[in-house]
Amino acid sequence: MPKKTEFLYLSESNVIDAGVLDTKRNVEIAEEVFTLLSKGDYLMGGSNHNSHGLGVSFPQRSPFPNMPVAGPDRRFVAMPAYLGGRFDVCGNKWYGSNAENKEKGLPRSILTLMLNDKETGEPLSLMSANLISACRTGAIPAVATKYLANPDAEVCAVIGCGPINKFCYQSIVSQAPNIKKAIFYNRTVEKAQQLADWSAEFLGIKGIVSTSLEETLRESDIVTIAASRAKPLYLKNEWIKKGSIILFSGPANADRAFWETNKIIYDHVKLHENYVAEAETSVDKQAYYDGVIGGPIYKLIDEGKIEPLIRSTSIGDVILKEKEGRTNKNEKIIFVACGMAVFDVALGYDIYQKALEKGIGTNLLLWDTPYMVK
Amino acid sequence: MPKKTEFLYLSESNVIDAGVLDTKRNVEIAEEVFTLLSKGDYLMGGSNHNSHGLGVSFPQRSPFPNMPVAGPDRRFVAMPAYLGGRFDVCGNKWYGSNAENKEKGLPRSILTLMLNDKETGEPLSLMSANLISACRTGAIPAVATKYLANPDAEVCAVIGCGPINKFCYQSIVSQAPNIKKAIFYNRTVEKAQQLADWSAEFLGIKGIVSTSLEETLRESDIVTIAASRAKPLYLKNEWIKKGSIILFSGPANADRAFWETNKIIYDHVKLHENYVAEAETSVDKQAYYDGVIGGPIYKLIDEGKIEPLIRSTSIGDVILKEKEGRTNKNEKIIFVACGMAVFDVALGYDIYQKALEKGIGTNLLLWDTPYMVK
Repeated sequence: MPKKTEFLYLSESNVIDAGVLDTKRNVEIAEEVFTLLSKGDYLMGGSNHNSHGLGVSFPQRSPFPNMPVAGPDRRFVAMPAYLGGRFDVCGNKWYGSNAENKEKGLPRSILTLMLNDKETGEPLSLMSANLISACRTGAIPAVATKYLANPDAEVCAVIGCGPINKFCYQSIVSQAPNIKKAIFYNRTVEKAQQLADWSAEFLGIKGIVSTSLEETLRESDIVTIAASRAKPLYLKNEWIKKGSIILFSGPANADRAFWETNKIIYDHVKLHENYVAEAETSVDKQAYYDGVIGGPIYKLIDEGKIEPLIRSTSIGDVILKEKEGRTNKNEKIIFVACGMAVFDVALGYDIYQKALEKGIGTNLLLWDTPYMVK
Repeated sequence: MPKKTEFLYLSESNVIDAGVLDTKRNVEIAEEVFTLLSKGDYLMGGSNHNSHGLGVSFPQRSPFPNMPVAGPDRRFVAMPAYLGGRFDVCGNKWYGSNAENKEKGLPRSILTLMLNDKETGEPLSLMSANLISACRTGAIPAVATKYLANPDAEVCAVIGCGPINKFCYQSIVSQAPNIKKAIFYNRTVEKAQQLADWSAEFLGIKGIVSTSLEETLRESDIVTIAASRAKPLYLKNEWIKKGSIILFSGPANADRAFWETNKIIYDHVKLHENYVAEAETSVDKQAYYDGVIGGPIYKLIDEGKIEPLIRSTSIGDVILKEKEGRTNKNEKIIFVACGMAVFDVALGYDIYQKALEKGIGTNLLLWDTPYMVK
């Protein structure tokens, strides 16, 4: 008997109506995903099951006048995954990114997520994934905050005040009950001020705008970094406050002491092992390192200056109590997160389930009877 | 000004109504793509721009009871690409495959294709891609037939009588005006007979069913191979008819003389170079080779027995008259095709344009105003 296949389409506003902006819920889901990662109940791309994704990147120049050329944040990436646990579903996030989008009234990246039946491959749902991706990216450092920050942390620094760090900040403070002050640092001060105003109004946390990265870091117990790649940050270890946690959701440079003397905890060590493996087979290893958040760390690991990845700790290991996280109040901890498709699949699946419950979305017919099984 | 984004959804029946089954048109498009490939006006995934795609493969066994395990044709693959020329668009084909689907009344693979604006990444169209993929897979050996087969070829062998080779066969005969007879060879004879009956009724070409691969090959001028991986074929060089062309759209084994003494022409040499590069960085190079159509060839290249890829010929080079194709009537030619996302993007783009012209499909709203650019 030929089988009819339908699936559910969710626009951005459907995704909102289904509850994607529920910060606490998203942090709970991210925590659940971290435990599945550390248990091994997932598969991402590639023969080692840990590929971040497959990108179409653009050349510096091209003899073909229409071919896109390299530009800030310009790429397309496909990120397929299977995630186990209660999710038990396959999916693929697919996005195009271009810094110039903002001038056109569009987000820098435009993302969709498709979920598929793990057995048949039938689409279950296609959804706008800008908010899913932003919310999961925000939830990830919030899980690290819950497990690795000092519970009495009072000052939170937001380095980079774009939409992604807004989600990070909002999620982080949901897990840091004693935050009394926020410091906003951004290339353009206006944007920092906007986020400070929003923080005061919607989160009830007063903030100041700072133009000194040094002063910001010296005062802050929790630091969330998600700044544009266009103008890289540079951090000095002497600026880092005792007992603080530095949460990387975007790249930054720092002096050697920063990486060499502080405890580094990863989102998922195997992902970083895969980045190093990909760098080793790429045309230019150093250029590859320069393009990823963990690059400065991998260089120092290669030099033998810091703990190799194989002996390193993933946050999931800490949640599962298999490895130590923070061991004392004075420790300074670096948390590095690179983004994995399994988080998109998890949040997307949760939204899909909620949309089904609430009757949200548009049903799409793939086929009444597939043409090819006649 | 925030920008509204909409895109067009095309179900399988929409894709049919937009003309996906127009064989001659599909062969023309495939020919156009081959020239763009040889000119270099395309980008696929990876740092060398020639990755076939990124798959999620399943382990042989898993400690997690719900995790899918390896099975016949079981995988998920994302295949992103940019294609230039008049197409000038990005896209991603995403599919799940499982041989067990047939028992459920579903095609072995279930595919969708998304096309995206090359500048902004906005979705342009999401479409059912089973027929797009099947039609482009069929059109590819048809282009090779046009350029490499003897024009007086009279007998066509169809090795493997599943839906893919049906498309190959139909497309091939559209480019071989003197075909008078077809020979159908398949693991199950019933299926071969069905295709023979269809050929007589719809193409006006009478055919016989054969249970001897040797006899089939000894008589055939054009041989199209797309058989299940489940029971691999084995070809002997002495069976191959003088002047014939053997078109591989699926894997087969053969004796050394088959690969070593016949002229090999590739769909796109750079794709095969990428397969070899991926094999070299994989956990098990021979296992990787065993999983791809070109595997038997790469092994002999590694042994120095046949022309290295760098000196080999792509069909696009022949179309562009930059390299020689067939040089005499007696030559036996092997054509190897592995499938590339650029063909899906090309056919999909053509169908999308036709659907726009004809007013076919369902308009979907991604957002009226993107949430993140407020």
